Amino acid sequence: MQFSTTKNDLIQAVSTVQKAVSTKSTLPILEGILFEASNEAITLLGTDMELGIKTRLEGTVKEEGSIVLSAKLISEIARKLPDGNVYFEKNNKNAVKITCNQSKFNVQGEAGEDFPKMPEVRGSEAIQIPRELFRSLIKETIFCVAKSENIPVLTGELLELENGEMKLVALDGYRLALRKGKINQGLSIKEIIPERTMMELYRLLSMKEEDLFVSTTKNQALFTIGETSMVSNLLQGEYINYKQIIPENATTKVKANTLELLASCERASLMARDGKNNLIKMHFNQGGLDIQSNSDMGDLNENLPVEMNGEPLKIAFNCNYFIDALKAISEEEVMLEFTTAVSPCVIRPVDGDYFIYLILPVRYIEHE
Amino acid sequence: MQFSTTKNDLIQAVSTVQKAVSTKSTLPILEGILFEASNEAITLLGTDMELGIKTRLEGTVKEEGSIVLSAKLISEIARKLPDGNVYFEKNNKNAVKITCNQSKFNVQGEAGEDFPKMPEVRGSEAIQIPRELFRSLIKETIFCVAKSENIPVLTGELLELENGEMKLVALDGYRLALRKGKINQGLSIKEIIPERTMMELYRLLSMKEEDLFVSTTKNQALFTIGETSMVSNLLQGEYINYKQIIPENATTKVKANTLELLASCERASLMARDGKNNLIKMHFNQGGLDIQSNSDMGDLNENLPVEMNGEPLKIAFNCNYFIDALKAISEEEVMLEFTTAVSPCVIRPVDGDYFIYLILPVRYIEHE
Repeated sequence: MQFSTTKNDLIQAVSTVQKAVSTKSTLPILEGILFEASNEAITLLGTDMELGIKTRLEGTVKEEGSIVLSAKLISEIARKLPDGNVYFEKNNKNAVKITCNQSKFNVQGEAGEDFPKMPEVRGSEAIQIPRELFRSLIKETIFCVAKSENIPVLTGELLELENGEMKLVALDGYRLALRKGKINQGLSIKEIIPERTMMELYRLLSMKEEDLFVSTTKNQALFTIGETSMVSNLLQGEYINYKQIIPENATTKVKANTLELLASCERASLMARDGKNNLIKMHFNQGGLDIQSNSDMGDLNENLPVEMNGEPLKIAFNCNYFIDALKAISEEEVMLEFTTAVSPCVIRPVDGDYFIYLILPVRYIEHE
Repeated sequence: MQFSTTKNDLIQAVSTVQKAVSTKSTLPILEGILFEASNEAITLLGTDMELGIKTRLEGTVKEEGSIVLSAKLISEIARKLPDGNVYFEKNNKNAVKITCNQSKFNVQGEAGEDFPKMPEVRGSEAIQIPRELFRSLIKETIFCVAKSENIPVLTGELLELENGEMKLVALDGYRLALRKGKINQGLSIKEIIPERTMMELYRLLSMKEEDLFVSTTKNQALFTIGETSMVSNLLQGEYINYKQIIPENATTKVKANTLELLASCERASLMARDGKNNLIKMHFNQGGLDIQSNSDMGDLNENLPVEMNGEPLKIAFNCNYFIDALKAISEEEVMLEFTTAVSPCVIRPVDGDYFIYLILPVRYIEHE
């Protein structure tokens, strides 16, 4: 194997595939990146067997071949190299000589043939999704993915593509996030994608400029962004029927300024740290919204002007859930909808239905 | 106690004193900040009994008094408050009401009278030192302070003020850093200041714009920067006579480009991680400087053009020590001076004597 590339291209390609690499694997070769030089291209591949990322390294191939190099080491070497052309040349002993100006590295590696193959996903027709849409939908929903593995399907996000609409749903038993966006395709997908895949996809989409193409088989999804592709296992099973837990016919509807409500909740959270609930009490009434929290350290009381329609209501929440949801909303104003003090709060846009956040209240006994 | 201030002034003053506050103290009151309102001023004080920082909070006092508030909590509250005027009002129960617009916090505190007094340092006449000079001298020497406490005086830095010159010295048994600068005063000080004090002083000097005034008693130093003052214990004992360990009469003198040498050492360090020594081998000869390092992962060889005078020399170092010293030097070129392969390397400026870094070599046996 013999090829040349540049320092910057090497840094780019290594950092693209590096996130799929195991940092601690029972199979040491998985801590490496497979470099493969063929007559067509140089490709880099990293995988931990659940997730694989493959990308193209720009360069000129002089001799075909492959080698596996420690991801951590090659990433550090790439960053520390002088600026300029970088020459890779494999010798017989699974080692590679990397030369750049007056620097000559000899790096021990492993045989490329020993690296596990990345599964070829030839599934459904690929669906094109605008990069920025997918990226923002991940960011605005992923915090609701369940941390516990009690219900395995909830450790992923539901991706629904149907009738020119894309939906991402995450829920953890206490709260739900749902975001929608328009796409220009009629093909359908309904799959549960592991949280880690979504995180890496978010990172990849932030690094790249091309749109995303998605296709799936029964067990796997293939995401392609320009010269980079990512293969991930899918979570098997039926996702929770989330539609039936979103309450309708609200009896109290409140329009609030998003940033002001967020700031109030953040102040309340400072005084709501006793126990596990981070309890914040809200009282919606004709005078606006009264917010209250208390702990051994003291208490907070404040009043926020809001526009209320319907019945006055006293209700309590884990204020961290409120904070997370409000942080994911960039709109100036939001609608809060309630039915009873023990039913979920639904947060919607003032116009449209392109997001829904749902938060279960906390029951509490009032000491007067 | 009753006073008003602004959100921004509160954030400033709290963050100034907060670094002296214990995060985990056997005396819980030391996790707090003392707020003291008198007819003249509002002052804030934080201390862990080894180090104390006091500053003035801008504001208007309506009623004198004092209280101790959790440093962590009041810092978070200050940051989360709405913009605007902030009113503090103590009630009878060692609690304070903090009001800002529609937000009302009730915060539990402790009696101001229970807070330990900060010692009044009335020592030598204060010496004025330019802020930026002291700040850069700390940064360029502090990494050589000993991490181990085997020799207690080496856990601090030696501060020498004499004949209009300021010197800071740090050494850890393997290396030494010495920096000098001119000041406009003839007074003398020779004291050993604990590393933590120097770190906090560096932080304070980075936040403020005024010059620094230093005065000392037998056991303590007082540093004053505008409205902020810091009292620190001094380390007792005789500092190592560092002058006698700096070799003279070098037989090999090398002029090198600082950044190029640093980059080479950083690359060499990637291949020098086996064992504890981070061994980098240097061979100074007519062809320049050959650098070599190796480990199980591979090896690095490179050649750096340098200007050499005197005897060729093979010598080895812990390359991290070289990297630390070179990072602290902003000059384009440096002089390296050697006598034998087992004597320290001295790094000096090409002109002048305003810094000296000294690094002990590592003995090694060459396998050819």
